[in-house]
Amino acid sequence: VTATSHGLGDERLARATLMRLAEPGDVLMGRLIAEHGAGGAVEQVRRGRLETAAWSDGFGERLTRSLAAWRTRLTLADAAADLAAGERQGARLVIPGDLEWPCRLDDLGFARPYGLWLHGDADLRFSCLRSVSVVGSRSATAYGTHISAELAASLSDAGWTVVSGGAYGIDGAAHRGALAGRAVTVAVLACGADIVYPMGHTDLFAAIRAKGLILSECPPGVRPTRTRFLVRNRVIAALSCGTVVVEAALRSGALSTAGHAVKLCRPVGAVPGPATSETSAGAHHLIRKGEAVCVTCAEEVIELVGDIGDDLAPPRRGPVLPRDALDEQTRRVLEAMPARGATGPAAIAVSAGVDLTTALSCLGGLAAAGFVERVARGWRLRPVPDR
Amino acid sequence: VTATSHGLGDERLARATLMRLAEPGDVLMGRLIAEHGAGGAVEQVRRGRLETAAWSDGFGERLTRSLAAWRTRLTLADAAADLAAGERQGARLVIPGDLEWPCRLDDLGFARPYGLWLHGDADLRFSCLRSVSVVGSRSATAYGTHISAELAASLSDAGWTVVSGGAYGIDGAAHRGALAGRAVTVAVLACGADIVYPMGHTDLFAAIRAKGLILSECPPGVRPTRTRFLVRNRVIAALSCGTVVVEAALRSGALSTAGHAVKLCRPVGAVPGPATSETSAGAHHLIRKGEAVCVTCAEEVIELVGDIGDDLAPPRRGPVLPRDALDEQTRRVLEAMPARGATGPAAIAVSAGVDLTTALSCLGGLAAAGFVERVARGWRLRPVPDR
Repeated sequence: VTATSHGLGDERLARATLMRLAEPGDVLMGRLIAEHGAGGAVEQVRRGRLETAAWSDGFGERLTRSLAAWRTRLTLADAAADLAAGERQGARLVIPGDLEWPCRLDDLGFARPYGLWLHGDADLRFSCLRSVSVVGSRSATAYGTHISAELAASLSDAGWTVVSGGAYGIDGAAHRGALAGRAVTVAVLACGADIVYPMGHTDLFAAIRAKGLILSECPPGVRPTRTRFLVRNRVIAALSCGTVVVEAALRSGALSTAGHAVKLCRPVGAVPGPATSETSAGAHHLIRKGEAVCVTCAEEVIELVGDIGDDLAPPRRGPVLPRDALDEQTRRVLEAMPARGATGPAAIAVSAGVDLTTALSCLGGLAAAGFVERVARGWRLRPVPDR
Repeated sequence: VTATSHGLGDERLARATLMRLAEPGDVLMGRLIAEHGAGGAVEQVRRGRLETAAWSDGFGERLTRSLAAWRTRLTLADAAADLAAGERQGARLVIPGDLEWPCRLDDLGFARPYGLWLHGDADLRFSCLRSVSVVGSRSATAYGTHISAELAASLSDAGWTVVSGGAYGIDGAAHRGALAGRAVTVAVLACGADIVYPMGHTDLFAAIRAKGLILSECPPGVRPTRTRFLVRNRVIAALSCGTVVVEAALRSGALSTAGHAVKLCRPVGAVPGPATSETSAGAHHLIRKGEAVCVTCAEEVIELVGDIGDDLAPPRRGPVLPRDALDEQTRRVLEAMPARGATGPAAIAVSAGVDLTTALSCLGGLAAAGFVERVARGWRLRPVPDR
């Protein structure tokens, strides 16, 4: 047991180091780890000589440049200090092989995170078993944030973990909605998990930490950049069973999350909005291209991302009217009745386009059901009863 | 020539009679006409004995009842009076074989209209060559009528005839929008083409008659019924190249029009709306089932219903930013620049995760493009230029 713990301890230290060296999602680093393990990869960077099959695959120039960058960063990296700081902050580093590591992330291949810094008491692996990513624009409309919050609350109440990016707009509304429900919510940040960005979400992040999880593949203290946001999106897509885009303009980062989900063969949903709304143009684009299914409520999202057959959405129906129970001939006779006053069965038959026998038989049935009544001068409509 | 005119005259009289006998879209009557011609069909009803293969196909009881109904109506029918009345009203009866008959209607098979009463100077066949049906709920929202009118106006300006049902709500807005454009608009009624229903559309119908066409497969004076509205919808679907549902609740008649278009293998589009809107639930349902393509503007409608390759919608794009032109390394260096103040190239290289040579080369490029500048203490961002 001690040996294993010690082994995992070394592995944790090595991965904490790698998180300082390479940018998240660097597939050359991912390949190096796959070939030599995390400890081996650190050792090779330290020695300044990379042994990888990537050399012969045409990545020579990139490898040389990457190695130089990694070595410079290695001189500044202090993984032991990172682990100590994490412990002080109540955070933990989860790495592949840990019980809490979500295997879904392994679908990312060489782009798999080196490790994840977690804040919060919930179990990441368990939380992600039934999870949906709800993502969208920062500059969302009132419609979008309303939908996002409602959708997330219903998903959460149905026991689904809502994963999002912690940003303003759709993300924030999704986390808030999920916090109102039963299940946990997971925020995946593009900066260190100890940093509150955006600052306006200080209270929200505190609430997520208390009830769910805040996580990042960046080491503590790292600030967010545009590139890190885009790279982070692959983690959101990979963590969850499927991704729903609530509101997204044509250049929204949410479309990159949807794109990652498509590449990972995870289902993607998009919520329609007004055709005139620029902030829904991205969602409509996904639906038009057939990359996303049109979803309008939590039941439809669960049908999309849930287990086949088990999580079917109830069919949506309009109101059922008493008239619906009538057969076609009877309905035609009913429609042939004069709007006011009474008329004879022959005139009704002609107007309905049926023969007299049929008309009389239908009138009898309609009378029994309370639609018409017989009076001195023929048949007339009865006032619509309250049913 | 006289013989032919006389022949078509007889045919016209026979079809005007049949329009009085059978309800529109009655496939038994359609079959009788296919087997014996319109004159033959009238003659058989008059004689009270139908010779049709439908007897042996299990339609015996329906045929007996239909024959009784048709014979009763025949005693009241006066086709010559209908034709005379039509001429007085400035209307014309167009029948299969006429130059103005749109062959697309022949796709309806036995349910093909017996004939069409037309008001208006436009040529029906020519008008329908490039035509789109724009349909939807009577109880439309302000959003729906706005979209309907805008879509129809753009389609009309692009030379596409807008076909609709003349009802309140989406239909009315579509006709109004189309009247504002270049092309004609066609209203297909569920009552006699001489009847203005709904009454509130008196001015609209007058405008359509003046610039487009009002038509019906019902004889003059026939009043609308629920059944006739549903049966009429197949004509709207069959007349046009494709159908677009703008706003439709789950029980809207517009969904029946879309269903007819699907059966006829004509493309169907649906305009998305707020997921919270009951009046868009039908449109979303069509999109979800894959029966309709999500369309948000006239260009996308034209791509859907137009000729393959010729009528492609321009790709929709978000704004292009100067940053987009940068390669990935350079972008990372730009993002690693401190928000305020200057810093040295080594610090920038570490922050960007690139080696020093790459950082210097990227900084040179960024300076040339005006993104950064070199100052005494290193490099700093330049204010964003107006481009």
